[in-house]
Amino acid sequence: MRLLEERILRDGKVRPGGILKVDGFLNHQMDVTLFAQLADEWYDAFRNDGVNKILTIEASGIGLACIAAQRFGCPVLFAKKTKTKNIDGSVYTTLVQSFTHGRIYDVIVAKEYLRSTDRVLLIDDFLANGAALEGLCDLVRQAGATLVGAGIAVEKCFQPGGERLRAQGLRIESLARIKSMSDDSLEFMD
Amino acid sequence: MRLLEERILRDGKVRPGGILKVDGFLNHQMDVTLFAQLADEWYDAFRNDGVNKILTIEASGIGLACIAAQRFGCPVLFAKKTKTKNIDGSVYTTLVQSFTHGRIYDVIVAKEYLRSTDRVLLIDDFLANGAALEGLCDLVRQAGATLVGAGIAVEKCFQPGGERLRAQGLRIESLARIKSMSDDSLEFMD
Repeated sequence: MRLLEERILRDGKVRPGGILKVDGFLNHQMDVTLFAQLADEWYDAFRNDGVNKILTIEASGIGLACIAAQRFGCPVLFAKKTKTKNIDGSVYTTLVQSFTHGRIYDVIVAKEYLRSTDRVLLIDDFLANGAALEGLCDLVRQAGATLVGAGIAVEKCFQPGGERLRAQGLRIESLARIKSMSDDSLEFMD
Repeated sequence: MRLLEERILRDGKVRPGGILKVDGFLNHQMDVTLFAQLADEWYDAFRNDGVNKILTIEASGIGLACIAAQRFGCPVLFAKKTKTKNIDGSVYTTLVQSFTHGRIYDVIVAKEYLRSTDRVLLIDDFLANGAALEGLCDLVRQAGATLVGAGIAVEKCFQPGGERLRAQGLRIESLARIKSMSDDSLEFMD
């Protein structure tokens, strides 16, 4: 998506260690006008798939998911990161390793909001190693719901998550696909 | 706001210890159609105040803030909870004590996204003891920005936050104001 690529080139900052900072418009300050344009793209891609629930993970996926949900006319469910073991059986739980923060989280959703009849679209801001997205896939699988696909804003194609998850059959629509990054340049996939 | 009160009575659950669970539509699963109606109310209240930024706190305020930002035509900034001391001076920091989780967080925003020229509306899902909202006020104060007011979905008026912050001069527009709660009843303010 040209619009998002141009925005990344204009306002994104590349930091040492392969960090792309887009916190001026995507995941700290959030440009909801841009979000609506991203949502339109995901809606074009998944409009015929009967999506009735959008699943994301806190915190930075929530804004994108809510704006996208308006297009799809469905609710959002956001998975929560927690260190508290919930033992009453009311939640689905999966483990997600954060490479950014060097931690492993339990990620949970309440069973009552993710049903076997749901047709679920995943939404998140970034796809890199794929740990968060894989965790969301696992929650959908535990619920016996139908996984329609994933809408991602920025995919780092030089990290292995996208390839691994596509090989598992996940349909992923990433709106900006970064082929390579160095301290002074950034190249998108064709 | 009658619509939100009715929704709370229909889908909310009161748990022992003064816990109101509204995670079916407000802060786990999120009904974005309802959110747009809440946003309309906040817009009616603050439309003439020149709001050019909405500030919220992760995670459950983000969805409400993004839908409201569409009405105001402005970006959202969400304050992040962190345990990492940021010592490079690029962020405003405040301490917030979570009564729900029994913890104290550092809450931060990047200085570059909160400017003295900003006219800031705070948005959050709950107001009870007021710790989170007070933290957001402090961040706005540190930035020298103008604090327009706060839009809250559910205020627990039997807890002290709203009264204390109004006494400090904060204009608060809460859309459902709970007067009292017990295990089997819930009463709203007139």
